Amino acid sequence: MLKIVPLGGLGEIGLNMMVFEYQDSAFVIDAGLMFPEDYMLGVDYVIPDMNYIKQNRSKFLGIVLTHAHEDHIGALPFLLKEISVPIFGTPFTMSVVRNKLEEQNLFFAAELMHEIIPRERLRLGVFDIEFIRVCHSAVDGVGLAIKTPVGMVVHTGDFKISHTFLDHMATDVNKFAQCGEQGVLALLSDSTNVEKEGYTATDQEVGETLTRITAGRKGRIIVGLFASSISRIQQVIDIAESVGRKVIFNGRSIETSVNIAKALGYIKLPEGLEIDIEQVNDIPDDQIAIITTGSQGEPMAALARMATGTHKQIKIKQEDTVILSSKFIPGNEKAIAKIINDLYRRGADVIYEKISEIHVSGHAFQEELKLMISLTKPKYFIPIHGEYRHLTLHARLAEQVGIPKENILLAENGQIVGFDSNGGRIVDSFFTGKVLIDGKGVGDVGRSVLKERRNLSEDGLVIVNMAFDEETGVIVYGPEIVSRGFVFETETGHLLEDAKCVILEIVEEIGADVPDRVNEIRLRMQRDLRKYFSFTIRRHPVILPFLLEV
Amino acid sequence: MLKIVPLGGLGEIGLNMMVFEYQDSAFVIDAGLMFPEDYMLGVDYVIPDMNYIKQNRSKFLGIVLTHAHEDHIGALPFLLKEISVPIFGTPFTMSVVRNKLEEQNLFFAAELMHEIIPRERLRLGVFDIEFIRVCHSAVDGVGLAIKTPVGMVVHTGDFKISHTFLDHMATDVNKFAQCGEQGVLALLSDSTNVEKEGYTATDQEVGETLTRITAGRKGRIIVGLFASSISRIQQVIDIAESVGRKVIFNGRSIETSVNIAKALGYIKLPEGLEIDIEQVNDIPDDQIAIITTGSQGEPMAALARMATGTHKQIKIKQEDTVILSSKFIPGNEKAIAKIINDLYRRGADVIYEKISEIHVSGHAFQEELKLMISLTKPKYFIPIHGEYRHLTLHARLAEQVGIPKENILLAENGQIVGFDSNGGRIVDSFFTGKVLIDGKGVGDVGRSVLKERRNLSEDGLVIVNMAFDEETGVIVYGPEIVSRGFVFETETGHLLEDAKCVILEIVEEIGADVPDRVNEIRLRMQRDLRKYFSFTIRRHPVILPFLLEV
Repeated sequence: MLKIVPLGGLGEIGLNMMVFEYQDSAFVIDAGLMFPEDYMLGVDYVIPDMNYIKQNRSKFLGIVLTHAHEDHIGALPFLLKEISVPIFGTPFTMSVVRNKLEEQNLFFAAELMHEIIPRERLRLGVFDIEFIRVCHSAVDGVGLAIKTPVGMVVHTGDFKISHTFLDHMATDVNKFAQCGEQGVLALLSDSTNVEKEGYTATDQEVGETLTRITAGRKGRIIVGLFASSISRIQQVIDIAESVGRKVIFNGRSIETSVNIAKALGYIKLPEGLEIDIEQVNDIPDDQIAIITTGSQGEPMAALARMATGTHKQIKIKQEDTVILSSKFIPGNEKAIAKIINDLYRRGADVIYEKISEIHVSGHAFQEELKLMISLTKPKYFIPIHGEYRHLTLHARLAEQVGIPKENILLAENGQIVGFDSNGGRIVDSFFTGKVLIDGKGVGDVGRSVLKERRNLSEDGLVIVNMAFDEETGVIVYGPEIVSRGFVFETETGHLLEDAKCVILEIVEEIGADVPDRVNEIRLRMQRDLRKYFSFTIRRHPVILPFLLEV
Repeated sequence: MLKIVPLGGLGEIGLNMMVFEYQDSAFVIDAGLMFPEDYMLGVDYVIPDMNYIKQNRSKFLGIVLTHAHEDHIGALPFLLKEISVPIFGTPFTMSVVRNKLEEQNLFFAAELMHEIIPRERLRLGVFDIEFIRVCHSAVDGVGLAIKTPVGMVVHTGDFKISHTFLDHMATDVNKFAQCGEQGVLALLSDSTNVEKEGYTATDQEVGETLTRITAGRKGRIIVGLFASSISRIQQVIDIAESVGRKVIFNGRSIETSVNIAKALGYIKLPEGLEIDIEQVNDIPDDQIAIITTGSQGEPMAALARMATGTHKQIKIKQEDTVILSSKFIPGNEKAIAKIINDLYRRGADVIYEKISEIHVSGHAFQEELKLMISLTKPKYFIPIHGEYRHLTLHARLAEQVGIPKENILLAENGQIVGFDSNGGRIVDSFFTGKVLIDGKGVGDVGRSVLKERRNLSEDGLVIVNMAFDEETGVIVYGPEIVSRGFVFETETGHLLEDAKCVILEIVEEIGADVPDRVNEIRLRMQRDLRKYFSFTIRRHPVILPFLLEV
């Protein structure tokens, strides 16, 4: 039986990871991370639970990567700790991966890193995998046609359909059609934008808008975008060239990404067009275009530093035009808005997604999703990459296109989809969670630690220190009260002084003859101080009494 | 000189409050709150800094409220502590205010609460104020025409222009036009939606969409919306009636709001149409429409309880249709998405803003904003209600409509706009912040307390307890290490055991003869433990060593 085992990305956006398994052969598609949700205080990022892979370690023959976004490759260092197998991806993807691993001082034998070109095939055990070019916001993305002993399964990766993309980087609709003609057992398709009607705007339209916006501007043009958006970068380069502006790349991730793209020939940069950031004041402002990072409001990135006036080389001026050519990712709106407000205050003009069509999503809208189903004509349909609502809506869309309801398999992470001669169905399920990464700690920060952080963050902490003479029960130290994050002591510090009276009353009441006295005092102190603070200031700090007997 | 003093809402969305002042006469327009931003850990809500009002207390003659949303009335209890003056608003607004004050056990002399009907006028010292009906998502909203000794100032409140709104509740464009004919010195206009091109969709369109969506549904219809959206509630009532469904109101705020609207005759509810929630299982599902709260994902509201299966009377079934007829307010998206996902998992169909036009904003889009400027033909223009970017864009829009650039005054909170015979300009500015409310604490939670909460929330806390003999310097207690929110002790607890060795080494090294020894030990402990935890687990907890000498 062919088993398709989703470990991440089916039930959330991000954290994509999936296992294909047939008897003793298995491989992994993608190993992504996710950024923490608000309630995951102090967590750096989140990766999929890899227990299933650990338990079947010996079966794994390879890791196949669809493209170079963090939600597809970010968990790779952790996966490589579990299985040391060859990795396969397109040239751009593999270059980014190599870079990333080296940055983390993870050196991985070069012979295990394989570059595969679209329409090339790859054999992993019983699986015969063909890479199919897809257009996405990250350059050099692919979908997969996976021939298995029970039939062909098509996995779209993240995709949209655009016919006016960078040379040879458009989605290979013909190959998907060819798969459809050969017969596709199941299609696994990207659900991210299933809520959106119609088609994504074309890159050409975005290019035209960018051209129109930048035309005739007297100051510098500063464009913020994602480092992996090579086609958008190429558009900005082309526009800059056509209007006589030099190009400056600023920001570490963009410089890395552009260097990789240049080396692969994915970026065409005419001789002499690029100048160094240090030359920014040597030529007139209307001859400068700066391509930079930080369009999500990341506080340490170049754009945020420009907005706050702390960028070393670039001080925003009255005539500058800043273009944020990327989506407002939910959760980042306030940080992005802050940058926009600050840039406006410095007198720059700011163009962003909400006021102009200067960005287009990398994920297919409804009509493109329907086209993918029509091209591949699958017997079974499995929506992937989305929260439950996206998977549900994509399932409905597939039904509209003619996939019989009983052949649409709505699986979430941990639900194993099995295919054999009897067809496809959910054959098994197991618990698979998310693993939180905090510093070097992998998975030790869970519900209880987060709850403690939450409690500390809400109303802070009050610590009481006292020492009693072990024999006489007399107070030999304290009560000393220390608080953190509770009250501003110069304003409401008298509360803490008054709390000492509450404590001394308790000590007096629970006399030296009471059995287990110190413990009794501790319990009463917890209770009475909670009541006292609730009554006086309606806050509920964590109360930690330390009562020493010496 | 007429002084217009913005205290909130010019530089952010929410927290609206503004003072009009002329010699010894002054009044306040609105007293709003804002919900805390992510970094304001543990804060309940935010109100404007009222210092300016305190300092000019004797001048104030009244408080004028434009409508009943929290960002316009939520800070009223705090304002009433500073000035005890008459309050003016429309019948719905005043009913909501009375309710709110009573809930907080604030009883305010009835003779100070004044209901004003649109087109009625009100005299406060030198000011002659006329209420002008505006259409907004909260029912019974008004703008103001304020005659002052230097000329008439028009304040739009929150508004949009809709001609198909509830009876007599459409924006009174004629009155605004009349003001324009009489001569308007300055227009202060709502900037919230200035980023949006065109016009807001009409309520009629939303009604048609709601009708289409609900037609022929076999199960119950459950509509989540804001309690003050009386016109939307009326639409749902009308649709329910037309298809033979009974109506149930569920959720405290909606019940309050509907009762007020019924008493005022703002809601038309045919006899016998409303049934009690306890009857929900007594009649067939296709004869039930439930109007409820929680469309922003509020975890304790009715919708969230339905989604998690903890609602007492309403268990979601396969055929139920849930309609979230409200905006996804930034910051709430994840909470709303969770509810949608959970409802889908329970088998309900869910319709929401992103997939269907079942909501329309209460704030004017660009064309409506332009119309307001054209109607009132102001000499000066002051954009209000928005972040700096919104104010900037609205200023540009006004320029396009023909207001001379030098007559557009872009002020933020604390910048006083003055008008006299020489015209209008920013005449002064002062610092005015935001006041954070946490429990009963007003303003004592500031930068330093928030920073402590932030630090505690990120990597938790490690406390070290030790006692030394005051005379010999010998350890008589400890080291005892207690942590909260740092590591999960059954997984990484050995770290804390090992940390004890770090501590004992320090104590050994800093001998009893070292001057100020305990302090030395404390400092070293802070430093060495920080290094130790950073090295071993790359986390940076707050470290609190308590070293007692007894």
